[in-house]
Amino acid sequence: MIQLKDDERLDDVLAENMKIVQSPTVFAFSLDAVLLSKFAYVPIQKGKIIDLCTGNGIVPLLLSTRSKAEITGVEIQERLYDMALRSVAYNKLQEQIHLIRDDLNNMPQVLGYNKADVITCNPPYFKTPQKTEQNLNEHLAIARHEIYCTLEDVIRVSSKLLKQGGKLALVHRPGRLLEIFELMKAYQIEPKRVQFVYPKQSKEANTILVEGIKNGRPDLKILPPLFVYDEHDQYTSEIRKILYGDK
Amino acid sequence: MIQLKDDERLDDVLAENMKIVQSPTVFAFSLDAVLLSKFAYVPIQKGKIIDLCTGNGIVPLLLSTRSKAEITGVEIQERLYDMALRSVAYNKLQEQIHLIRDDLNNMPQVLGYNKADVITCNPPYFKTPQKTEQNLNEHLAIARHEIYCTLEDVIRVSSKLLKQGGKLALVHRPGRLLEIFELMKAYQIEPKRVQFVYPKQSKEANTILVEGIKNGRPDLKILPPLFVYDEHDQYTSEIRKILYGDK
Repeated sequence: MIQLKDDERLDDVLAENMKIVQSPTVFAFSLDAVLLSKFAYVPIQKGKIIDLCTGNGIVPLLLSTRSKAEITGVEIQERLYDMALRSVAYNKLQEQIHLIRDDLNNMPQVLGYNKADVITCNPPYFKTPQKTEQNLNEHLAIARHEIYCTLEDVIRVSSKLLKQGGKLALVHRPGRLLEIFELMKAYQIEPKRVQFVYPKQSKEANTILVEGIKNGRPDLKILPPLFVYDEHDQYTSEIRKILYGDK
Repeated sequence: MIQLKDDERLDDVLAENMKIVQSPTVFAFSLDAVLLSKFAYVPIQKGKIIDLCTGNGIVPLLLSTRSKAEITGVEIQERLYDMALRSVAYNKLQEQIHLIRDDLNNMPQVLGYNKADVITCNPPYFKTPQKTEQNLNEHLAIARHEIYCTLEDVIRVSSKLLKQGGKLALVHRPGRLLEIFELMKAYQIEPKRVQFVYPKQSKEANTILVEGIKNGRPDLKILPPLFVYDEHDQYTSEIRKILYGDK
């Protein structure tokens, strides 16, 4: 049993035999979160994974299907944290997934320095605009704009949380790629793997996946590209496989 | 009539109705130079284009099919400069293409500061190794290793040569992407367009094309990907089109 509030729904989590609490007016997970969960390296048996800006907990839920490691999701918004809590409980994952409602800037003190094996984050994509341009829906505005955390916060805090050799995986927009590289370098995280996601084969990339290693050796790899739609505007087989487990 | 020396050949330049002097032991142009010539923005009617590390002049020859602008090729090796001279003369392009045999570091003084509209460069890809690891063939070693010019030389000199708003287009390897971004930023060239070239759709990229604009506004675009071979190990139609003009 689960209590749904307002316009919340209990949605399927892809082909994963899990359910998640979502709401069209508060938060619903995106393809980007799914791609991040697939892209990120995870230790299989044990270790510490932290998902910053966890929203309704989609990334921890998906990572739990790939890893037995302890996963901590951090979310600043009470309303989203509450959704994540109920989803974790519904899926009986309280042993593996822990949730913290707090500012991610407090995490090094709360979770400890140099302890995490992997950090994932699907951060707000847009710099904070003028008040008048912001999304009037406060929950969506916070998820999309750098109101409570900036890209630099995410990378600085991740560098403090990660072990030597630990990995940070981010999903973002191509327009921020240079800044991600610069900030990772500035905070001793060496960019190592990048994957570009193109809406179609003939279009510019609209999403980037970047993984860096704390104090890693410089050697950047550009993974094979991902295409979301084919020429008939249908999901490509690779995306269907990620979303629905199609072979 | 043209005089060919040693093992030189007079090869076709793709579908361009031009010929070029090449030699398997001295210098023969690569697909990378062709991709760079296609990728680079060029003014159609007039302006100044400079090709650094021009080798046997393949990039100026190809750019001359797309632009009426004045093109200057700069090559430090006498032997390659001499091949380029003969190719330009053979194709009767002496009015449009000028060649300079000199160190590119001298070019701001020779060609003037802040005058170029476009600079192209297919530089040596590899950092200078120990003498014992270098290619024993001096011509090939100089073309492949940063013996006479480093990536920083190319970008620093380009920044001096370019007008405000002028463009620098480079072809290189993914492992040097971060360095290219850092150096461009350091020398006031803003990276604006990047295209990744993958040997096949399922493989990591092995070539990058990067264009920056002097004092440009930050806004990076990732162009649609290029694949060289299809699943049957044949050139893809897009590469055949670039190489042979196939429709």
